[in-house]
Amino acid sequence: MLSKNTLKFIKSLQQKKFRKQEQAFFVEGSKNVTELLQSDFVVTHLLCTTKYEEEHSGLLAYFKGETFEVNQKTLESVGTFQSNDSALAVAKIKSNTEFELDSKEWVLALDDVRDPGNLGTIIRIADWYGIQKLVLSNESADFYNPKVLHASMGSFSRIQFYYTDLQKYLAKTELPIYGAFLEGENIYNMDFGSGGVIVMGNESNGVSPEVEKLVSHKLTIPRFGNAESLNVAIATSIFCDNVRRQQYLKSAK
Amino acid sequence: MLSKNTLKFIKSLQQKKFRKQEQAFFVEGSKNVTELLQSDFVVTHLLCTTKYEEEHSGLLAYFKGETFEVNQKTLESVGTFQSNDSALAVAKIKSNTEFELDSKEWVLALDDVRDPGNLGTIIRIADWYGIQKLVLSNESADFYNPKVLHASMGSFSRIQFYYTDLQKYLAKTELPIYGAFLEGENIYNMDFGSGGVIVMGNESNGVSPEVEKLVSHKLTIPRFGNAESLNVAIATSIFCDNVRRQQYLKSAK
Repeated sequence: MLSKNTLKFIKSLQQKKFRKQEQAFFVEGSKNVTELLQSDFVVTHLLCTTKYEEEHSGLLAYFKGETFEVNQKTLESVGTFQSNDSALAVAKIKSNTEFELDSKEWVLALDDVRDPGNLGTIIRIADWYGIQKLVLSNESADFYNPKVLHASMGSFSRIQFYYTDLQKYLAKTELPIYGAFLEGENIYNMDFGSGGVIVMGNESNGVSPEVEKLVSHKLTIPRFGNAESLNVAIATSIFCDNVRRQQYLKSAK
Repeated sequence: MLSKNTLKFIKSLQQKKFRKQEQAFFVEGSKNVTELLQSDFVVTHLLCTTKYEEEHSGLLAYFKGETFEVNQKTLESVGTFQSNDSALAVAKIKSNTEFELDSKEWVLALDDVRDPGNLGTIIRIADWYGIQKLVLSNESADFYNPKVLHASMGSFSRIQFYYTDLQKYLAKTELPIYGAFLEGENIYNMDFGSGGVIVMGNESNGVSPEVEKLVSHKLTIPRFGNAESLNVAIATSIFCDNVRRQQYLKSAK
């Protein structure tokens, strides 16, 4: 039986303050919940409809947390989705641990990307392009924000991430640092090496002056028309595509 | 003096039904209003703060519609922005007129892109990449939806668009038709010609079977990781970037 206190606890996780205090977060919807259950996150509570339970019985046979059969109304009352007829799951927040970087690896670094939708979309892009590590400035949007997790379309479970003082972090790395700027070298002419850090800046202000100093290659996506700028998630996808495409075409030669 | 009826009329334009009935729409915020005033749209009403009026006096000297000085509260009560301390303007909807396509031109065609945020972002991408024409299936999101206009960041004023039966429209064109599919040829290997139509499909279902039959080149953005798909606006930007990059690199040789 799902107690009022548990419902209150889950609902409180919509707010960052309580996610931090409880060291817990939730994800919603069939796809994200299923991805969460298949990941290395420790899932403590699963709220789901009979239908979801029946359709995922194989996966749920290995589930060690508590399962609560609930109806759509309950899912919608504790979560943020307007409509949710499948599931919601609570998991433990992972410790914020620094990861090693390999010299032949591509890493994304976000310098104050504040919009949760943008962060979620960037996570999905990173996962598509096989970029597994994400470094975020402390002021970037919260990875565990329900909007971030939703926009990531399940990719949140496959990305390693680390919140830190980005300036200090980048000052230490030996990898080349590529950054997106409106006034930089044409990205189409860049000969990317085998690994590096791609820095994307804040939605309004771009890359901060402190981080800019550390960027070894300032790059621009050429403009053929009149828009003033591109959305940061769009720019991220263009950077990832340019890097991977060049690697693909080099290896195909 | 701004009458209650005028305010009611403007507010009603939040809904497609009334935009259609009144053949009018509105845009909000300093950037979009300024772009609108500089465009060939016929602007009938301008609601703005004293500050906006002072800062844009040069532009407003040529404005022939009605100007109403209002406060932030009024702007927020008639519009959709949570915060608007600058302006809102009403303009006439343009007639839905078919445009000619040049054989050396790139055109975007949207097959039921339903999300207003996606459409707005796609308009901004098209404008960045110098693609000036957009063909939309009749079921696509409404160009004049406030969310579309907002997400376009002013680019709405520089794009020609035409709503039509996309299948019939594409059946007539002599341009090559490129489409985004999960199972297609690798876009990195495509030798794009000097012009063509790029078709992007619905958020959930992709390109419809009827339109798929007309696509001459089914292309895929290669995946290097594990995400199941890319957002349609992201995929659009990758297509545009691949086309323009190839043209740029060919012309640089």
